[in-house]
This record gives sequence, structure tokens and C-alpha cells, in this order.
Amino acid sequence: EHPAVGGVCNVLESDGFEVVIVPVDTYGRVDLDSFAAEVRKPGTLLASVQHANHELGTMQPIGEAARLAREAGVRFHADACQTVGRLPVDTEALGVDLLSLSAHKFGGPPGVGALYVRRGVGVTAYPCGDDRERKRRSGMENTPGIISMAAALDASVAAMADQAERQWALTATLRERIAAEVPRAIVHGHPTHRTPHLICFSVEGLDATTLMMALDDRGIRLGSGSLCSGHPSDPSPVLEQIHAGEPHAFRIGLTPETTQADLDRLMETLPGVVGELQEVERSSTEALARFRPPEAG
Amino acid sequence: EHPAVGGVCNVLESDGFEVVIVPVDTYGRVDLDSFAAEVRKPGTLLASVQHANHELGTMQPIGEAARLAREAGVRFHADACQTVGRLPVDTEALGVDLLSLSAHKFGGPPGVGALYVRRGVGVTAYPCGDDRERKRRSGMENTPGIISMAAALDASVAAMADQAERQWALTATLRERIAAEVPRAIVHGHPTHRTPHLICFSVEGLDATTLMMALDDRGIRLGSGSLCSGHPSDPSPVLEQIHAGEPHAFRIGLTPETTQADLDRLMETLPGVVGELQEVERSSTEALARFRPPEAG
Repeated sequence: EHPAVGGVCNVLESDGFEVVIVPVDTYGRVDLDSFAAEVRKPGTLLASVQHANHELGTMQPIGEAARLAREAGVRFHADACQTVGRLPVDTEALGVDLLSLSAHKFGGPPGVGALYVRRGVGVTAYPCGDDRERKRRSGMENTPGIISMAAALDASVAAMADQAERQWALTATLRERIAAEVPRAIVHGHPTHRTPHLICFSVEGLDATTLMMALDDRGIRLGSGSLCSGHPSDPSPVLEQIHAGEPHAFRIGLTPETTQADLDRLMETLPGVVGELQEVERSSTEALARFRPPEAG
Repeated sequence: EHPAVGGVCNVLESDGFEVVIVPVDTYGRVDLDSFAAEVRKPGTLLASVQHANHELGTMQPIGEAARLAREAGVRFHADACQTVGRLPVDTEALGVDLLSLSAHKFGGPPGVGALYVRRGVGVTAYPCGDDRERKRRSGMENTPGIISMAAALDASVAAMADQAERQWALTATLRERIAAEVPRAIVHGHPTHRTPHLICFSVEGLDATTLMMALDDRGIRLGSGSLCSGHPSDPSPVLEQIHAGEPHAFRIGLTPETTQADLDRLMETLPGVVGELQEVERSSTEALARFRPPEAG
């Protein structure tokens, strides 16, 4: 079981491949020495690293990782879902063989994405079946989705420089305020090597679902849980990898529409709600301890 | 190599499965005795039959086939891409385990479809990876496509009875006229057990691309070739299975918008164009024979 990277690894293993997870530092950055050692092991076929982690926002050193993989003769895939449309992504400069992106991450429709394949890199069709897209992907193309994706990407790239600067400033302030004002909160991810739009934090001794429901009542929606599985009460495998100590990550993702006023409203609400819930949690734990029945025997 | 049913069979075989193609009659209807013998062979896992063939329009006896498969303990899949939205498709009455459909066949968008899975039938996720759709299909859903598909299906089903009757009448006449008026044409498929919208014919001694280009110049577009591969000059594997004698199938597919006037215009053009091209073909063959250089030696 590899919860940190989802069911794909389990499927690969059931197909007879060995999957190795390379350790990360406390910011979630891949350890390049470990990475180099793994790609150099004979028989290694493919290395895959996220351009930026989807919970922490931490940027990965994929240029260096791609170089190490290339020197070892190992194909390199980058998952750039968090960065395409938000930061410059130059496949040539990064030296990647494969790069995937997802339209809904930059304002395009759900259910459509793209896989960049460097010229000369062979891929087997998946899903398999017919001759479409030079035998690389079967089935009729989702043309409306593809056209919408391209339009959304054009718009995102046109606004990218301004949005990146604006969102970095907003999230830098918000990181500081959460750490300072939310009781027993820890802000995760790298403070500077990070995407403009993401903030990840955890709160000591608090049930994730309870906090999310309390905020939802006040019109604020936080992301949590194993974010791709959609179960808010699942512990975050990413936090587990960085040994954060708390099981639940809360994620705030900015969009081009998010304003300083939105974040001010969040910070008017969040510290108080967290404090109240922690107090309820503390009281009920104490009450439970007081009314504990005497031990039998 | 199984050109008649596409690359899926080749992929299954490379994964170690044995694929058996059951023979069909001259109308393209599956031979139920052969089918029964195959599903009864120990180790048979799945049988798959088209509800209607996509080139010939011939309806398959999938109710009987599903019953034979069920009695043999073999899962049964029906490809209903040609019939959903055009004819009633009752998965319970047909007794199928799995049934696939494609939105663009009934006026929905390209790149979206559905797989009916009878309650209690387990399927492994494909593509694999996450927990979505009860672990049956991974990746973010193409919501705009799904909603459009549902709307198109509603509209198709509402107009279905009228359209089926109207299109059956149009194609019945057209079948007769092509057989009678187009020089050396043969109309394929079952004359009555057929979908309302499809006509398939071949023409003796004529290059498919040449005919399609000549008609295209006159504003008429015929489908041909291995229709899903998109190469008009590929011979039709379906015609090969029914031993039609000619390699190229031409397909006319009616839509709810096709009128008698459209088909009249086709029949004003088609017989003459076919006759002219056959004459050119005949003259050039004769000329080639006359100017053949004397044999060396």
C-alpha cells in the first residue's frame, strides 16, 4: 500500500513492478541523494516527481531530478498539475521526458488534461485499442473539453505573471497570520520554494470534519483529507511523509478571483472557531475522565 | 491480429488471453451455434457482441446470446453504440451484464460514453488509480460531457419512435434504389433486422478513395474504410468477415436531420459518378494492357 501516491502504485505492483517511494524533507522536497541512488539502481525504468506538491505547495527540484534520471538512463515524468497556468513550465529547460497537466487546475473543464511526450520517447497506448493520437490514446477525443482547456490555458498564461506575484504576496501574509493567530496551528510547506496559490496547515488536537463543518456553517470551505479521494476524515498521506505529527492537512487554494478581503474574512473567523472547538474538545475530554466508571474488579 | 474487432483483442492477447472470433452469416449476424460452443468451453470469461454492427447496421441476436452466455456462466457484454438513442435498449430484458454506449452516436459530444454494469457484476477499474466512481474509473469526471450526453439522450429518446419509423422508411427505399441504380453495387446487411439509420454497400472494381473524393467534390460525404481507424483506403474488416468479395464498404448514416430531399440529391449524383469512374478504370486498364512493354529476354 502506497497511500502517499495513490492507487497507481498498487496497480503497478500488482502488475509485477517494484515501486520505491523516495523520502522527502520536512518541507516535502524530495531528497536528491536518495533519488540519485534509486535511479542508478539497475532495472529502474521510470522516475516521477510532482513539480509542486498538491497539498503543501512546495516546489520540487525537478530540473535536477530530471538530470539525475537522464544520466542514469531512466525516463523522467513530472506531474505539473499544480504549476501549469500558474508558473512558467518549460519542458525543454526542465529536461523532462513526460509531463502531465490537468485542465481544471487552471480554470478549464473537469475531466480533461494532457500528457507532454518528448519527441523520441515511446509510450504504449493507454487506454488501448485503436489508432487514434498516433496509437497513444484510444477512443474519440473530447474535443469540447480540449478546446476549452486550450482557451483556459491561454487566459491563465496571459495573466500568469501578475497573478503569481499577487497570490504570492497574499499567501505570504496569510501563512504568517495563520501561524501567529490560529491557536496551535502549524503552517507546512516550504516558505519560499512554493506555488503562489497554496497554503497548508494543521491544527493540534482537532477533528478535521468538525472544523470543516464549523467553517462551512460560516460560509468558508477548506480542503482536507486525502484530497483526491474526497473523504475529509482520511488522514493526509502527505503530512505523514513529512512527519508533521498531525494527521489532517487543511488546504487553502487561491484562485485569480480570491481577494485580500476574502482572506481577511477567513482570518476574522478561523482563529475563533479553532479556539472554540479546541475548548469543546478539552472540556469533553476532562468530563469523560471525571465520569469514568471505576475499574471493575 | 484481429482487424475485425480492433486493437483491443491484440492487447488482450498480449496480456495472455485467448481471443476467439465467432463467425457470422452473410448479413453479419453472429452464428449462435458457434457462439454457444465457444461460451461453453471451460475457461471462457467474457463474450462480447455488438447490438448492431456499425458498418452493416445488422441487428445481432444479443438477447439469445446473453442467455447462452449466462447459462454457461460467462459474463456478457453488448456494444450498443449504434442502437442507444435510436431503438429501445432494455438491459433487463436483454439480460446483459455489461453494455457500452457512446454519446456522439446520438447527438451528444465526442469523447464521452457510459458503461452499464449490472448490479452484482464486479469490474476492475480502468483507467486505474483512485477511488472515484466506486473505484471503477479513475480521474476527474468530464462533467460537462456527461451532462450534455444525458441531455442528448433525453432528446433522442423523446424523438425515437418517430425517427426510427421515418429513417427505416427512408433507408428501405434507398437500399432498393442503390441496388437498382448504382452500376454493379451490392447492398449489404440484413434487409429487415437492421438499425433504422445505416446503409452499407460496395461497388465492384472501384477504388474507395477515388469515389469518396469524386463525391466530396459534389458535396456528398460517404463513410468508408475501417471506419474507426479513419483511413479510407483501409479495407473493411467487416466486409471481409461476411465474404462480400469487395474490400471497401461505403456507409451512409442518417441523422434526425436527414431528409428525403438529401437522399434524392445523393441518388441524382451517385449512379453517374460510379459509372464514370468505372469507365475511367476500364479504359485505363485497357490502355495499360495495350502499351505493356514486350517481355525482356
